[in-house]
Amino acid sequence: MIRFNCDYSEGCHPAVLEALVRTNMEQTPGYGEDAHCERAAALIRTACAAPEAAVHFLVGGTQANFVMIAAALRPHQAAVCAGTGHINVHESGAVEATGHKVIAVPGTNGKISAAQVRALVENHWDDVTHEHMAQPKLVYVSNPTELGTIYSLAELTALHDLCREKNLYLYLDGARLGYALAAAGNDLTLADVARLTDAFYIGGTKVGALFGEALVITNEALKEDFRYIEKQRGAMLAKGRLLGVQFETLFTDGLYLKISRHAVDMAMLIRDACRAEGWEFLVESPTNQQFPIVPVEALKKLGEKYAYSPWAKIDGRREAVRFCTSWATREEDVRALAADIAGS
Amino acid sequence: MIRFNCDYSEGCHPAVLEALVRTNMEQTPGYGEDAHCERAAALIRTACAAPEAAVHFLVGGTQANFVMIAAALRPHQAAVCAGTGHINVHESGAVEATGHKVIAVPGTNGKISAAQVRALVENHWDDVTHEHMAQPKLVYVSNPTELGTIYSLAELTALHDLCREKNLYLYLDGARLGYALAAAGNDLTLADVARLTDAFYIGGTKVGALFGEALVITNEALKEDFRYIEKQRGAMLAKGRLLGVQFETLFTDGLYLKISRHAVDMAMLIRDACRAEGWEFLVESPTNQQFPIVPVEALKKLGEKYAYSPWAKIDGRREAVRFCTSWATREEDVRALAADIAGS
Amino acid sequence: MIRFNCDYSEGCHPAVLEALVRTNMEQTPGYGEDAHCERAAALIRTACAAPEAAVHFLVGGTQANFVMIAAALRPHQAAVCAGTGHINVHESGAVEATGHKVIAVPGTNGKISAAQVRALVENHWDDVTHEHMAQPKLVYVSNPTELGTIYSLAELTALHDLCREKNLYLYLDGARLGYALAAAGNDLTLADVARLTDAFYIGGTKVGALFGEALVITNEALKEDFRYIEKQRGAMLAKGRLLGVQFETLFTDGLYLKISRHAVDMAMLIRDACRAEGWEFLVESPTNQQFPIVPVEALKKLGEKYAYSPWAKIDGRREAVRFCTSWATREEDVRALAADIAGS
Amino acid sequence: MIRFNCDYSEGCHPAVLEALVRTNMEQTPGYGEDAHCERAAALIRTACAAPEAAVHFLVGGTQANFVMIAAALRPHQAAVCAGTGHINVHESGAVEATGHKVIAVPGTNGKISAAQVRALVENHWDDVTHEHMAQPKLVYVSNPTELGTIYSLAELTALHDLCREKNLYLYLDGARLGYALAAAGNDLTLADVARLTDAFYIGGTKVGALFGEALVITNEALKEDFRYIEKQRGAMLAKGRLLGVQFETLFTDGLYLKISRHAVDMAMLIRDACRAEGWEFLVESPTNQQFPIVPVEALKKLGEKYAYSPWAKIDGRREAVRFCTSWATREEDVRALAADIAGS
Repeated sequence: MIRFNCDYSEGCHPAVLEALVRTNMEQTPGYGEDAHCERAAALIRTACAAPEAAVHFLVGGTQANFVMIAAALRPHQAAVCAGTGHINVHESGAVEATGHKVIAVPGTNGKISAAQVRALVENHWDDVTHEHMAQPKLVYVSNPTELGTIYSLAELTALHDLCREKNLYLYLDGARLGYALAAAGNDLTLADVARLTDAFYIGGTKVGALFGEALVITNEALKEDFRYIEKQRGAMLAKGRLLGVQFETLFTDGLYLKISRHAVDMAMLIRDACRAEGWEFLVESPTNQQFPIVPVEALKKLGEKYAYSPWAKIDGRREAVRFCTSWATREEDVRALAADIAGS
Repeated sequence: MIRFNCDYSEGCHPAVLEALVRTNMEQTPGYGEDAHCERAAALIRTACAAPEAAVHFLVGGTQANFVMIAAALRPHQAAVCAGTGHINVHESGAVEATGHKVIAVPGTNGKISAAQVRALVENHWDDVTHEHMAQPKLVYVSNPTELGTIYSLAELTALHDLCREKNLYLYLDGARLGYALAAAGNDLTLADVARLTDAFYIGGTKVGALFGEALVITNEALKEDFRYIEKQRGAMLAKGRLLGVQFETLFTDGLYLKISRHAVDMAMLIRDACRAEGWEFLVESPTNQQFPIVPVEALKKLGEKYAYSPWAKIDGRREAVRFCTSWATREEDVRALAADIAGS
Repeated sequence: MIRFNCDYSEGCHPAVLEALVRTNMEQTPGYGEDAHCERAAALIRTACAAPEAAVHFLVGGTQANFVMIAAALRPHQAAVCAGTGHINVHESGAVEATGHKVIAVPGTNGKISAAQVRALVENHWDDVTHEHMAQPKLVYVSNPTELGTIYSLAELTALHDLCREKNLYLYLDGARLGYALAAAGNDLTLADVARLTDAFYIGGTKVGALFGEALVITNEALKEDFRYIEKQRGAMLAKGRLLGVQFETLFTDGLYLKISRHAVDMAMLIRDACRAEGWEFLVESPTNQQFPIVPVEALKKLGEKYAYSPWAKIDGRREAVRFCTSWATREEDVRALAADIAGS
Repeated sequence: MIRFNCDYSEGCHPAVLEALVRTNMEQTPGYGEDAHCERAAALIRTACAAPEAAVHFLVGGTQANFVMIAAALRPHQAAVCAGTGHINVHESGAVEATGHKVIAVPGTNGKISAAQVRALVENHWDDVTHEHMAQPKLVYVSNPTELGTIYSLAELTALHDLCREKNLYLYLDGARLGYALAAAGNDLTLADVARLTDAFYIGGTKVGALFGEALVITNEALKEDFRYIEKQRGAMLAKGRLLGVQFETLFTDGLYLKISRHAVDMAMLIRDACRAEGWEFLVESPTNQQFPIVPVEALKKLGEKYAYSPWAKIDGRREAVRFCTSWATREEDVRALAADIAGS
């Protein structure tokens, strides 16, 4: 079985593994207060052109999301996101478990617009009974989205401007951020993301690391006492240097972007193979997740050899599925898949 | 200004007030462990034909909702309700503040159907990643709904049957329950409600009491240690007998239903006056809340004399508003309003 | 049975009741946005010499405590109190249910000193692993304490000064505040309390009201969005004017203090009767709660006629109990008790 | 600087590292549903003689503690532990952040006795106002304790029996469990721990792994839906197989116990060196943590070469500190330390 069902099927990139092996018997202080974390944070601040940013390394994406949101909000405040947002559907109510409502707005192809958020916020504050409603305070976007789409510089700028105007925080979930930055048509840089958001994380788990997410906080108000909340929520790794070592490696010599590009290239091969068969897509994605709508008989045959994620029933004859690539995807496997798609 | 904006503008029914005055200097134990609470609970059990039910008296509706939900659910479990459900929109995230997600389904005129809940639940359990989603466990309905509509015996039975089949709890928010029971076309009795739900509350605040809601728990599994959770959430009144005295009065000689009928009668006068003007309604309501769509110029004139709740913009010329009646509404005020509607 | 077991055995003071009766059929806006609440707040601001204070009316003491604490603290911050503090032992974990640790320091006769708090706080910040410990941020004191003792102006000033120095909030639980203000030897005024704390509440439930506590917030940082959190925690009474009417009455013509004095006078009669018998006290209390250590045979006889609260076993022959008086205590009942103590 | 300050200064045992390297490019399903986790769980069930136990792999100790406690308790229930218990002092209020009170009993040398817990629980249930207090429901012990001491079979059996009698859960934090099992005088086996507790975890982070704790749940009532709560709290690692691979290695050929023994042997060398100097100990510990009371001038000299944890001021001339060993401690480093102690 060749796995295209998700982008965390393998361990880590060989360079990351090598660094972990090399540093294994070093003695360092715990809890992320070691030289590796320090260097990794410095590299990330440079990559983000954000010399004042606080950088914290957490273990996973759900964790990064709810720890940041819990740290940012007062009890009556809510996070606003697309209906498809990861915090809304696939984190088992993690944000709510910290006491905060998640307010979903419909979204389009996984994205929400500044106009939608504006309408929601203005409606809240216009209402005489606003005290009876959870207060929208933080806007959550993921880039790429859960549907593989990406935000443009203009779109993110509009969200940023709105958040400044309405006194909201803008938070970006970058679980697959590398794959957005590497996408054709992307016009956002890491520095843009750092400049336009109050906090965001750079995903490692899905982009070359064994595990780990680098949370970058640029808004001064969100920095205070973050490590307490990290600890309280079980997000402070005892051997924190493992995260430092990994991000140090990923942010040396442009490795993070380089391996992201490979994943996108592989995804484009799958996309092209599907297109050649005349298959439609649930959504057009320029990143490592592809959502073709596949005839069920073709799917059955492919399923014998390849793992994919079922996504949505379309009609009796077709089903939308997800194929993922990653830094680890082997071109020969993709070529095999493409050939089998062609022959299906 | 004559107030029709809500159903809690006045104090309490004279008979309730008289009972409070009469018992004022009695010495009783605190926290609801007095003879008045005992008698009120017995009267309610009888009215509900539920001799084994646990009856607890809480101060307000939001409180009753989140205390009951917090008592019923494990951390990963969610409450399912209509998008218009009070817990979803007008309780400032109270349920989420206890750690639980509220999953909204669209609903029709404030109601949700067994079929809608079935689809949601089956979709949850069919999904291989269900552990990544909050688990639907409790179905919340309000009767009458926030839009004044009511559930039929058939509809509530269908929800009950589904909840049994799927191992869900069915919880009914009866903030205005009297007004549903008194509505034309209603075919539900208190005994039906008790039999078909796992827990529900009989609203006092909006139906004759100064404050207070009688929570009736029929499901044995939901009874254990409820008073701890009540206390923990600030819902255990020190002078609990105040609640006992009020419900004792409301459930003597059918007072609760009698005063509910008055409110509905008064609402029907308002409805008829609007209909006579040819005004449409946002939703057809047989209960004490009426949602006419009113020309803005008429509304402006009415607003000088009467308080109403703004509800929804319809178009440039018309606005949907809410007029409420209650046990306290004076017929002369309603007649005046009707006359002014006619003349508008 | 004549009840001395607690100070909430009766309803409310006749003047309060009369006001409730008089205003019963008034129509007012809900949720505390009525003229009675406005007037009551103004009276309280005047009594506290705190013209800028925010005044909110809540239903009960546990509620006032956890709503204020939840509003004040970030997730990793803790409340510090005496081991006997109400939030630590008799609120079913209400503060913890909002996510915050309660850190208990031993205390003496129910009180904590500035020196104790200083040691705790300095120890926290000195520790290199302070991020691994809940951060002390709010100091909770009750006055009178749960043991009937009171803070002096000097003691409260010392706590205030420390809290300023260490950037802590000082919060005072005044469930029985009137009885402290009326105690012999008390040198604190309401204005002192308002000046020296960041927030405190004036208890109504135990001092003349049917229910209700007036929360006074003087620290600007604690005022923002308080009503959201009040609503979220079920603490915003629909017919808020009931609280306004009661506090309006209690703060007119010095009623609050006058009835508090009566309770203290009655308690002193009980104290003197016990002393005359040579009974010791668990703690010397100048307020409405008395904790004599009573021979078991005397207790048995008294228990046939009078309700008291068991408090602590002392030895095989004696037991510490609590006798409470209140605004409602009848002198004839106290005289009867004193006579029976004398004859025991 | 040679580090003896904690037992997580290095990466992982070479055998664990080798297994991670060997399996790095395997493709597996995520979230712990892979063959490595399956095998590791089977090995652990065998080692525990608990064929029906549920085994879950979590990332860290704080996380394991609060996820298990949140899964086990209803909102009003509390965990009982020693005052020195990790959940009480060094987890930043993590348990409270899930809504539960931690009730500390004094403890002796980090341990609590069945008699102490019995007194607490009986006092709770005897009290007429028990509903006003958080309900003790889960007993938390750590073995070894935070002070390096260990529970005997008799002690743990007594706690188990009491918990059965009083309907409490017994939960054991085994962050350093290997070091207890390897201690001289220990008479507990893994099978005993599994049999006597309702749940416990086998620490990996401090005993040979990069990170990871194996939670073993033997009580059927605690198994249901655990993975939901794991996910909700950010404790479900995407590449769960990393945990499986590590524990698979640690539980093959007795590696876990073997490396634990080494740590204890090294600690005994340190202990003996201190004893030879006539230094007292804060507490007698047979495990990998040693707490000698060291003259300040000796400490200053040692501190130039060795990292230790400051623990407690004793008097002007002496300080209690902690020296930790681990699976990774090199005998040559310990010999050097011993020599320097001897010469100090």
